[in-house]
Amino acid sequence: MPHSASSLSDRRAPWRRALGDIIFGLSSPAARLYDKVLIFLIVASVLAVMAESISGLSPEWKAILRWAEWGFTVIFTLDYIGRLLGARRARRYAGSFYGVVDLLTILPSYLSLLFPGSQYLLVVRALRLLRVFRVFKLARYTDQAALLGEALTASRERITVFFISVLSLVIVFGTLLYLIEGPENGFTSIPTSIYWAVVTVTTVGYGDISPKTGLGKFLATLAMLLGYAIIAVPTGIVTVGLQEAKEARQGRHCPQCGLGKHDTDAHYCKRCGENLPG
Amino acid sequence: MPHSASSLSDRRAPWRRALGDIIFGLSSPAARLYDKVLIFLIVASVLAVMAESISGLSPEWKAILRWAEWGFTVIFTLDYIGRLLGARRARRYAGSFYGVVDLLTILPSYLSLLFPGSQYLLVVRALRLLRVFRVFKLARYTDQAALLGEALTASRERITVFFISVLSLVIVFGTLLYLIEGPENGFTSIPTSIYWAVVTVTTVGYGDISPKTGLGKFLATLAMLLGYAIIAVPTGIVTVGLQEAKEARQGRHCPQCGLGKHDTDAHYCKRCGENLPG
Amino acid sequence: MPHSASSLSDRRAPWRRALGDIIFGLSSPAARLYDKVLIFLIVASVLAVMAESISGLSPEWKAILRWAEWGFTVIFTLDYIGRLLGARRARRYAGSFYGVVDLLTILPSYLSLLFPGSQYLLVVRALRLLRVFRVFKLARYTDQAALLGEALTASRERITVFFISVLSLVIVFGTLLYLIEGPENGFTSIPTSIYWAVVTVTTVGYGDISPKTGLGKFLATLAMLLGYAIIAVPTGIVTVGLQEAKEARQGRHCPQCGLGKHDTDAHYCKRCGENLPG
Amino acid sequence: MPHSASSLSDRRAPWRRALGDIIFGLSSPAARLYDKVLIFLIVASVLAVMAESISGLSPEWKAILRWAEWGFTVIFTLDYIGRLLGARRARRYAGSFYGVVDLLTILPSYLSLLFPGSQYLLVVRALRLLRVFRVFKLARYTDQAALLGEALTASRERITVFFISVLSLVIVFGTLLYLIEGPENGFTSIPTSIYWAVVTVTTVGYGDISPKTGLGKFLATLAMLLGYAIIAVPTGIVTVGLQEAKEARQGRHCPQCGLGKHDTDAHYCKRCGENLPG
Repeated sequence: MPHSASSLSDRRAPWRRALGDIIFGLSSPAARLYDKVLIFLIVASVLAVMAESISGLSPEWKAILRWAEWGFTVIFTLDYIGRLLGARRARRYAGSFYGVVDLLTILPSYLSLLFPGSQYLLVVRALRLLRVFRVFKLARYTDQAALLGEALTASRERITVFFISVLSLVIVFGTLLYLIEGPENGFTSIPTSIYWAVVTVTTVGYGDISPKTGLGKFLATLAMLLGYAIIAVPTGIVTVGLQEAKEARQGRHCPQCGLGKHDTDAHYCKRCGENLPG
Repeated sequence: MPHSASSLSDRRAPWRRALGDIIFGLSSPAARLYDKVLIFLIVASVLAVMAESISGLSPEWKAILRWAEWGFTVIFTLDYIGRLLGARRARRYAGSFYGVVDLLTILPSYLSLLFPGSQYLLVVRALRLLRVFRVFKLARYTDQAALLGEALTASRERITVFFISVLSLVIVFGTLLYLIEGPENGFTSIPTSIYWAVVTVTTVGYGDISPKTGLGKFLATLAMLLGYAIIAVPTGIVTVGLQEAKEARQGRHCPQCGLGKHDTDAHYCKRCGENLPG
Repeated sequence: MPHSASSLSDRRAPWRRALGDIIFGLSSPAARLYDKVLIFLIVASVLAVMAESISGLSPEWKAILRWAEWGFTVIFTLDYIGRLLGARRARRYAGSFYGVVDLLTILPSYLSLLFPGSQYLLVVRALRLLRVFRVFKLARYTDQAALLGEALTASRERITVFFISVLSLVIVFGTLLYLIEGPENGFTSIPTSIYWAVVTVTTVGYGDISPKTGLGKFLATLAMLLGYAIIAVPTGIVTVGLQEAKEARQGRHCPQCGLGKHDTDAHYCKRCGENLPG
Repeated sequence: MPHSASSLSDRRAPWRRALGDIIFGLSSPAARLYDKVLIFLIVASVLAVMAESISGLSPEWKAILRWAEWGFTVIFTLDYIGRLLGARRARRYAGSFYGVVDLLTILPSYLSLLFPGSQYLLVVRALRLLRVFRVFKLARYTDQAALLGEALTASRERITVFFISVLSLVIVFGTLLYLIEGPENGFTSIPTSIYWAVVTVTTVGYGDISPKTGLGKFLATLAMLLGYAIIAVPTGIVTVGLQEAKEARQGRHCPQCGLGKHDTDAHYCKRCGENLPG
């Protein structure tokens, strides 16, 4: 976004603009320091949520984690308020993916104050674990995600086709093995058999359910070989998608006729002969 | 298909043509609504077949599912009749892949009327589960499947070579481990050992059979590393196949000399200099 | 091979040449029929060896399989003699990969005549199972294997680097987990731990050995993620190798300056301007 | 490195330079023999460390392995001293990755002399197993590693994005299954559940922990399908990265304007028309 254009429509007070530059900015020293501190805090807070779940923690550790959690909550609350104040459009931020994540991951701690003694209720426990969604805040700091995103978007339809094929495959194989092996061999229902088929086709292979009859093993063998070969399909799709996305990025557009896809080292438009910029 | 040509040879009555346009069509609003409703019904009916297999269902749910099944059967029967009437060549449709699937997946319900009380016979149960094949009806709605199909067709021979190599590998490894480990370690016969080899080479790894002796483990290690590296081969094949299929699609043909493979932004045929269309 | 040149140096009698054309040939109707019959017999004989290993076979089936095996042995012996007689250089054939396989897979039956009652000795049983190597005879009939072979040959060094990396990885991870988990958790020795590491890095995951301690699980997690990401490397290598092999095949060579890598649709050499053939 | 330039700044005595040529050189017959002997010794010494860990070794074998270990230690010590003397900059070598590995893998044997009878202490045992790191010495001999290295370096950022995505995925799935399945089904804490998620997403699938509830199985199914499809991403990244690295290598640079990325068969710079060398 060109700076001249943005400042025209920007009605934020100067201090809010400065705040926004630090919190949302990427290049100034202050903004980079802010980002680094926040990445550290996000990772630390996720590790704290994990640590809390370990049974047999000593009371001292539990106390430390409780205090740390309050520290994280306060800091992320300040960060959230800062983002609301510093954003050019506070509402847009609040409604965005990151705005929702930022809010959702500070709420649980405050809710536990409203309902004291309730931390053993499932809903509250579930809410508290929402804090682990803080990892999604990290996505902010990954520039290159864009290229991957473009490749996946360009391949959206082919990926859908792939998933429908895999789903059909596991439904059919699951139903066949439910019929052949039956409940006595662990294939207690079609959904369970489909679970087995997914475990098999994706080559995970827990082994909690496995075919016992000869025919079942033969069909399982087919499912494995298909799964083993089918993995090639999304890989091919993503590879071709990545190449397309990269070429689309590299290609420069002719200012006269608008043609894209010029070589990065071309000097003249290959259609109209216009001098290419840059 | 150009419309002028098709209407000449089309001897269907106007109402049958209109019906065919709704059922087989892809672009008119009525056709798209019809497709959406059908996709919903297919998914719902497959879920119903799955739900039926869960043991411990309450009698109420069983009744609901039985009625739902009759609803699906009636609707799919009407769809089948509509397709027979609306198709330009009813016989060709009836003999096609989709025609057979459409028929096979409505038959089981009617058969259960002919043989009352027989729903516990294996053959009937098997037939009833055929209804799950309705998922294949979804393939109708996946445009992009064509490109994948072309890529796979172009790579057909190489995929065959790949499968023969993998089969040889699992046969040899299965036989070797049958010899080394023997029935006392779970490798009860060569087919069972080959089942183990497929489980291993495809990296599924259930663990229901695994080598116990040192030499067996060493050979298993080799099989795993081979399987791990070999997966690269179908992936490479499909990726190169996808690129070929895409290039073949993009390439425009010269109206004068027939040469294909022109760049998408070329204005003149690179062989004969003819102006390229489009 | 141009026929005129070959017949000059060919000192076989006419009937041996005709025999050779049928057995080794690929295009004449007799040769193609011979190939089809042999492929069928190879598959049947491999299936028979497998069936023989199933315990609990009825005596009738055992007799049938024994007779079938003698049938296969006689036919493959005639095929071997035919190849020796029909080959342009009998010694070269006998010493080639296929010659050795052809001989090795008929020997066991004759050996069992020399040492009657010995079919339960391990060495003899091992020899008899050699017959399963007949699957390798199938490789003769796979044209497209050549392109894959070229791609793998072109990528030979990179694949070696990949295997050395994976081996170093599993040795280091195996040793670390032997140290951390120790014999009490199933990691009884470094070779066993390396077996576990291969099972893990290749994503097979039997589960016969798995880490129990926290630190062991953490390291196992690292090994899995590495294995999951590293699979991308051979895939990339083979894909690029396949593209290279395909391009090298497609490229035509200039008769004047010898330059290869011309586009398949080029009419003139892009270096010296010579007319390209074909 | 051009020889004339290097000898100017090279203040090593002639015998040290000759020693360095043998030890560090790659092309002279003596250097190649030295490399081959060393590769053999590295592999042998790693195998010896592994063999030592097998319980139930006879005292004779233990003695042989102890003596072999001293032999390896002496030879690798001489190699280390030779490298220090023959290197153009001894300090730089000593501080390099290989210098540290070379030192670390001879130290344990000498330490066991200083602390006799201590070979059962964990720290000493850990140190002794460091000797297995000798496999890393092999990396010296793999030329082609460079191309792979370049491809990985070029894809560094995208690989980081991939790993952050996978980590976020396993953290979220691990937390969800901890909540749904709970300690009674083996998901005893969030770290353990994340271990399960990694086992699942990477398609390893030990089966030591697996979901028991319907909802847990459904979520596990999603995790598997995601893991199965996501593997396509690093593969695409590495393939595109390898192609880039290869093209960058092949491209020749124009001596006049410095432009790279010329076709390998181009005669003139496509930007400035200068004659290209070679």
